[in-house]
Amino acid sequence: MTRTVLESKTKTVTIGFDEPFCVIGERINPTGRKKLAAELEAGDFSTVEKDALEQMACGAMVLDVNAGVVYNSNPNPNETEPPLMRKVIELVQALVDLPLCIDSSVPGALEAGLEACEGRPLLNSVTGEEDRLELVLPLVKKYNVPVVAISNDDTGISEDPEVRFAVAKKIVERAADFGIPAHDIVVDPLVMPVGAMATAGRQVFELVGKLRNELGVNTTCGASNISFGLPHRHGINAAFLPMAIGAGMTSAIMNPVRPVEMEAVRAANFLMNHDANGSEWIKFSRVLDAVEGGQSYPEASKAALDAGGGRGGRSGGRRRRG
Amino acid sequence: MTRTVLESKTKTVTIGFDEPFCVIGERINPTGRKKLAAELEAGDFSTVEKDALEQMACGAMVLDVNAGVVYNSNPNPNETEPPLMRKVIELVQALVDLPLCIDSSVPGALEAGLEACEGRPLLNSVTGEEDRLELVLPLVKKYNVPVVAISNDDTGISEDPEVRFAVAKKIVERAADFGIPAHDIVVDPLVMPVGAMATAGRQVFELVGKLRNELGVNTTCGASNISFGLPHRHGINAAFLPMAIGAGMTSAIMNPVRPVEMEAVRAANFLMNHDANGSEWIKFSRVLDAVEGGQSYPEASKAALDAGGGRGGRSGGRRRRG
Repeated sequence: MTRTVLESKTKTVTIGFDEPFCVIGERINPTGRKKLAAELEAGDFSTVEKDALEQMACGAMVLDVNAGVVYNSNPNPNETEPPLMRKVIELVQALVDLPLCIDSSVPGALEAGLEACEGRPLLNSVTGEEDRLELVLPLVKKYNVPVVAISNDDTGISEDPEVRFAVAKKIVERAADFGIPAHDIVVDPLVMPVGAMATAGRQVFELVGKLRNELGVNTTCGASNISFGLPHRHGINAAFLPMAIGAGMTSAIMNPVRPVEMEAVRAANFLMNHDANGSEWIKFSRVLDAVEGGQSYPEASKAALDAGGGRGGRSGGRRRRG
Repeated sequence: MTRTVLESKTKTVTIGFDEPFCVIGERINPTGRKKLAAELEAGDFSTVEKDALEQMACGAMVLDVNAGVVYNSNPNPNETEPPLMRKVIELVQALVDLPLCIDSSVPGALEAGLEACEGRPLLNSVTGEEDRLELVLPLVKKYNVPVVAISNDDTGISEDPEVRFAVAKKIVERAADFGIPAHDIVVDPLVMPVGAMATAGRQVFELVGKLRNELGVNTTCGASNISFGLPHRHGINAAFLPMAIGAGMTSAIMNPVRPVEMEAVRAANFLMNHDANGSEWIKFSRVLDAVEGGQSYPEASKAALDAGGGRGGRSGGRRRRG
């Protein structure tokens, strides 16, 4: 049974076929967030702190950390991103005890993140591009961490799911050459917008089953891509997530501060028999009650957490890596 | 490719693996609706009329008609239900041009409904019980209609999905003995409440796949059973429906006047590539806009229908049965 083990300072989170769906909070990412980018360049980390606490309260089990700011004062991310990644990681892990997902396309930032992380983070990401494989897989091996493998390669992103499967297979095989086991590869099959490609949903559901059955790997995705450009996109997301979970998807990089999507994930966990006695659903339903009573979702989630309502992550002794 | 063809006076609705999910409106049913039961005994059909129009506006593609009232003046349903079934069907089909689903446990009411229906209705239901098989299958053959097959038998409802599959298989085989093809059997695998049986969701998803792949039949269910007894049950239903659709379920008997569930069904249709260009989703999103603007969901749905917003059923020449 495939289990991808992530760790923070004291907590273990397992991504797996028999585990609740792993929600990886996407908010700590300046891409497309101009205000956050400007704050980070100015050394203001208040939004990062708020995002870290809020996502944890709302049920994120892992936090993605992306420090991809292009500074106005220095346009070379190879110089600016590694120290910023280190700084953000130190700040976040001082605030919340959740495993992190180190998200960068800058190799120096990936390594700076790996050095700064206290637990066993998820590295995000490698692709099937030759230069990425050569750069990232040695880091994965050296730090003994799991990695997100995105199924595009030097020819780009294929619209053909068979080609994307073949890219994923190549990454898994190449990783094996480095001694990295399949259970430490979390494949992102790439979710296209269903508004642009009518088969986008079915492709993902079929690919996820095949990745699981034939390669034995866990899977993840940028879930909200599915609804890009559509009206009432939260309704599309809230159907996509349960369908992907039913098809075997085991994690997603998503916004946990959205109650509609989180309700869908929690209901799907219950329906997959990954919520013993529905206890997580019952706790969550009290948060929904509070939201109906007028509280904001993050406020209601925080109140439930403070009252001992739990947040889905599991406490456990952290194993040493190495 | 399995196709179960239903007809009203002029419209054809196909339940099938490559069709949008067939929403069978459950509202015209006095079971558990004391007020409606009293009205029907008193000859007041205003609620039936309202329910017929409202369900059509909200997107029902087929209407279930159940006339199971136990009269205070006459406790024998074998006497009272057949004429009431006939009356309700005549009234409903004069109002809405949708195929009907004749729902009764009283054989005389099933036959009265079959006589009264103008199109090719769905008969609801036969079970694996010997006396039901002997009574209902000859009616199915005589009137050349499809039938809902519920997977319980003389031993009751098994908690073991393998037993429920075996009951469905027996019904399909027994129907074949009557010359009834598998594509005219719509199997209800029986949905248990997930609050009482933790495996209830997974059982259904697995059974639906097996019924489809091994017996080649369409499937249906009483969808809201899954959330019986739970808080925020619409959230459970709204995840269950897309997951069941992803697993291959092709119809459900459900309440179409619930926007959360209908949003989930419409999003799942889109994600299954059963909504060309997302045109049904776009229309539906305008209804959601109107609801956000303060209209009730039935009102907004009716306004969209009156404006030519469509309702998912397909117009087509009705074939003759026989």
